[in-house]
Amino acid sequence: MKLTILGCHSATPHENKNPTAQLLDIKGHRFLIDCGEGTQVQLRIAKVSFVHIKHIFISHLHGDHFYGLPGLVSSFRLLGREAPLHIYGPKGIKEALTLLLKLANSWTNYQLYFHELQSGESVCVFEDDSVSVYTIPLKHRVYTNGFLFTEKEGFRRINNDAALKSGIDKSQFKLLQLGQDIQVGDVLVKNDEVTFDPHPPKKYAFCSDTAYHPLIVPFIKGVDWLYHEATFLEQHKALAQQTQHSTAKEAATIARDAQVGRLLLGHYSSRYKDRNQFLKEAEEIFPNVTLTNDGAVIS
Amino acid sequence: MKLTILGCHSATPHENKNPTAQLLDIKGHRFLIDCGEGTQVQLRIAKVSFVHIKHIFISHLHGDHFYGLPGLVSSFRLLGREAPLHIYGPKGIKEALTLLLKLANSWTNYQLYFHELQSGESVCVFEDDSVSVYTIPLKHRVYTNGFLFTEKEGFRRINNDAALKSGIDKSQFKLLQLGQDIQVGDVLVKNDEVTFDPHPPKKYAFCSDTAYHPLIVPFIKGVDWLYHEATFLEQHKALAQQTQHSTAKEAATIARDAQVGRLLLGHYSSRYKDRNQFLKEAEEIFPNVTLTNDGAVIS
Repeated sequence: MKLTILGCHSATPHENKNPTAQLLDIKGHRFLIDCGEGTQVQLRIAKVSFVHIKHIFISHLHGDHFYGLPGLVSSFRLLGREAPLHIYGPKGIKEALTLLLKLANSWTNYQLYFHELQSGESVCVFEDDSVSVYTIPLKHRVYTNGFLFTEKEGFRRINNDAALKSGIDKSQFKLLQLGQDIQVGDVLVKNDEVTFDPHPPKKYAFCSDTAYHPLIVPFIKGVDWLYHEATFLEQHKALAQQTQHSTAKEAATIARDAQVGRLLLGHYSSRYKDRNQFLKEAEEIFPNVTLTNDGAVIS
Repeated sequence: MKLTILGCHSATPHENKNPTAQLLDIKGHRFLIDCGEGTQVQLRIAKVSFVHIKHIFISHLHGDHFYGLPGLVSSFRLLGREAPLHIYGPKGIKEALTLLLKLANSWTNYQLYFHELQSGESVCVFEDDSVSVYTIPLKHRVYTNGFLFTEKEGFRRINNDAALKSGIDKSQFKLLQLGQDIQVGDVLVKNDEVTFDPHPPKKYAFCSDTAYHPLIVPFIKGVDWLYHEATFLEQHKALAQQTQHSTAKEAATIARDAQVGRLLLGHYSSRYKDRNQFLKEAEEIFPNVTLTNDGAVIS
């Protein structure tokens, strides 16, 4: 699992301060999460091939999470894309993109599938053999979802030496991976004597934008990484409540209560010159905190 | 008159290759012309105060000329703008921006005036005491206008020495500027003996995107600067015709036939590594050619 931060700043973009966008590499998928203005250039800088992006998840329809999407969809066409594209986002996203394409007298020469969201409950929006993606209902000024990306449990891992010593033929290793015991002559070799448990499935939760919202804790319990917005510091808590954003302390409280592995902070307001204040405030509540930066790669 | 090139590249944006946007300083106005994705960051880099931009002219609704506008309009609000904003562009621009604001559950806390264009003729879209702006109907895959910015003729300029020597009191200089003769005792001092002609009014024509379209020549006759798109070189003339863009040679032909002062080229396709090919091709037709670059200032 690898996370590339394409943009982690709030509201108005500046040079080297890009609005929200992330790329999650997980089990062979490259999921784009949010798409603020300038995301396609950030993808270029990160040397991400556009064609590998097949699923885009949009949290909400504020410009700093969404206004890079029309340009990306257009660029895909100009670059001759043929692979289908799936876009998951709040109801209205299809109307917006369709109108913009119509006004440009344009189209896509690839299949464009919209998966519009309007449920207030957590729903599964994507699933295949290796990964599931669920929404995390957030609390913001407009309908907003976070996203929980969970690997499915993999195969049991073979203890080569033990398996061969027990006389198991390599042709039966696939059965071992599936958890079966193996008959070797008169002896039944127990699976757990010759295999290790699968690697624990990785989980990543993206939660932005949101006010402090403890109801999300059960959804993100024990995730490896939690990206939680921290637009403000506690000194501006009233402003956080008014605009339905979080403080660094609130983000850390969620991380602590959900017992996550690591808290990733972002969506910083540009009013703060010293970013380390976010780290300091969060670490008073929860020890494992990383401040994200545009271009950073977490793995 | 000063022109800041914020972006002069075509189609898909890259790092340091921004789509179309320009800022024209003329007679105290700061006119934004087109607004491709990333324009607000380019304005920041050029150290342009957002509040001085009161009129935005959009040529057409292709993304590389327009997809920076929703973000800019949103940023204006976030920054507390109060000054009215006028947007001039093809019919549909109001519907697009209104829908995006509605989906974001947002608004503007300043007056936002849309001046939607749909005429196939040249029309005056802005006029005050010092400047007029006219559309220039272009030929592209979608309804597109160029814009002609013309200064109005200024006051006559006083020849201080001559005026004072003739015994004219400074309190009458305003009348001299307006072209009046002045009675000094028994002598009528002729205006042109104590004044110079006004500076000739400056004119700037922006023509992008467009196929080679000689019908525009009468509209842009004798302008000081002509920005004309040159997406392609002659070697790709068929592609230019198919996509309704121009070659450098075609842009230069327009410049020559319109007897402009200087031709500014831009909207280069990224397929060409050597930008000087555009210069070479154009200079074979017309001598005064400038290749624009992102961030360049022409004055």
